[in-house]
Amino acid sequence: MSTRTIKSVSIVGTGKVAGHLVAAIKQCGLEIVQVAGRDPMKTTALAAKAGSRAIVGFENFVPGSDLVLIAVSDAAIAEVAGLLPDDEALVAHTSGMAGMDVLVSTHKNCGVFYPLQTFTEDREIDYNNIPFFVEAANKQDEDALFELAGRISRNVYRASSEQRRSMHLAAVFACNFTNQLYTMAAEILDEANLGFEVLGPLIRETAAKASALCPKNAQTGPALRNDLETITKHLRMLENKTEFREIYALLSKQITNTHNT
Amino acid sequence: MSTRTIKSVSIVGTGKVAGHLVAAIKQCGLEIVQVAGRDPMKTTALAAKAGSRAIVGFENFVPGSDLVLIAVSDAAIAEVAGLLPDDEALVAHTSGMAGMDVLVSTHKNCGVFYPLQTFTEDREIDYNNIPFFVEAANKQDEDALFELAGRISRNVYRASSEQRRSMHLAAVFACNFTNQLYTMAAEILDEANLGFEVLGPLIRETAAKASALCPKNAQTGPALRNDLETITKHLRMLENKTEFREIYALLSKQITNTHNT
Repeated sequence: MSTRTIKSVSIVGTGKVAGHLVAAIKQCGLEIVQVAGRDPMKTTALAAKAGSRAIVGFENFVPGSDLVLIAVSDAAIAEVAGLLPDDEALVAHTSGMAGMDVLVSTHKNCGVFYPLQTFTEDREIDYNNIPFFVEAANKQDEDALFELAGRISRNVYRASSEQRRSMHLAAVFACNFTNQLYTMAAEILDEANLGFEVLGPLIRETAAKASALCPKNAQTGPALRNDLETITKHLRMLENKTEFREIYALLSKQITNTHNT
Repeated sequence: MSTRTIKSVSIVGTGKVAGHLVAAIKQCGLEIVQVAGRDPMKTTALAAKAGSRAIVGFENFVPGSDLVLIAVSDAAIAEVAGLLPDDEALVAHTSGMAGMDVLVSTHKNCGVFYPLQTFTEDREIDYNNIPFFVEAANKQDEDALFELAGRISRNVYRASSEQRRSMHLAAVFACNFTNQLYTMAAEILDEANLGFEVLGPLIRETAAKASALCPKNAQTGPALRNDLETITKHLRMLENKTEFREIYALLSKQITNTHNT
């Protein structure tokens, strides 16, 4: 099999990830030939952003692009893929959790093109920093995805479906759960008439420090010091917030366990 | 009472916070006249950094500086303060949790000078970004602490002891617990032969996004989407890690509660 060159891309899906992929792929000067989606409004809007045809209904998808990126919810990937033609195109999904195997039965040239990021609409992102994880059923296609990701970002990795799943789980802890802790902190501050912005420098330094050192070495705080007096005072302050107390107790115990073994 | 001008500072304590205060205060060109501590080695070392006298044993403390900053553990503040002379100096502790009242019985001109940051030894910090919370028994002293903090940082707030305590508790959630989640993520990645550095861009963006939007509006992930399929898969991946499962379940429930009320 000869080397695959990607010059034209089709986007399947119209959600947040699809939107960011359109922006990232346009930035590296590739042509987006179509955006395919279920919802006419969303499809038309994203196609306009992409400067491409809008295809409403996956069964109307037009064959012929070099790469097809499927950015739909995990549960819909297999079904949507089943509606797309199996021509010579490389067909990749963009999910962290779904294995590459969900595409194997419908597309011989299949792969995964997974950007690890927390996408919120209308927040501009520096794609250059986003880690990409690529995988494909054959080496030529994996090289092509690797090369494409490298045009978007300087952090590109080859990873198996299993590694990608671990990455996704790790990201839930490091990103989604972390953000929930920020939300709880904001509530505590709000009740004391303080704004969350006072914590900005602290949370940014905590993230920077964990990246620079390893996070275990960056740990500080009352649970690490086994400062029972402070812990007791904190729990007393949370007397009327049962869930906050539970989370406080559980994470403090976990800090103690991590650093005493 | 006339306005207080701070020209000379004494540092009491030789731990991490004391070390960072020495660096920050030297940066704004004030004279540090003495560093007082219990441990001869640590006291001598920090005094050398400060370019000041080393005073071993708090009872040998020399009166006469304009400001005395007590940076010892919360449990020791009252006892240490009791060993210091009560002259005209402004005596402030640097704790988030301790109220100003722990100094009232020993020092008429008392206050608090609290830098909110996660201090790890040998990691350089941009003091200009650290939020400072100041409080004093009288307005002149509070103005003096506010002015001094403003020479170190551009984020300076006046806060009551109660507000400071809430801030400290919020910081445990937003910083200490967050770092523990990073540590757990690092363990998950390690078991998949992946390094924590792949998460660097994500955790920095999560922190930046929460600062820019409010964290509640920045939430993403399976628990927010109520994506039970992914949640079930994640919990299955954590089958052999009971504490991870517990924390996963509790924080997911908390995300659901936060966004459905």
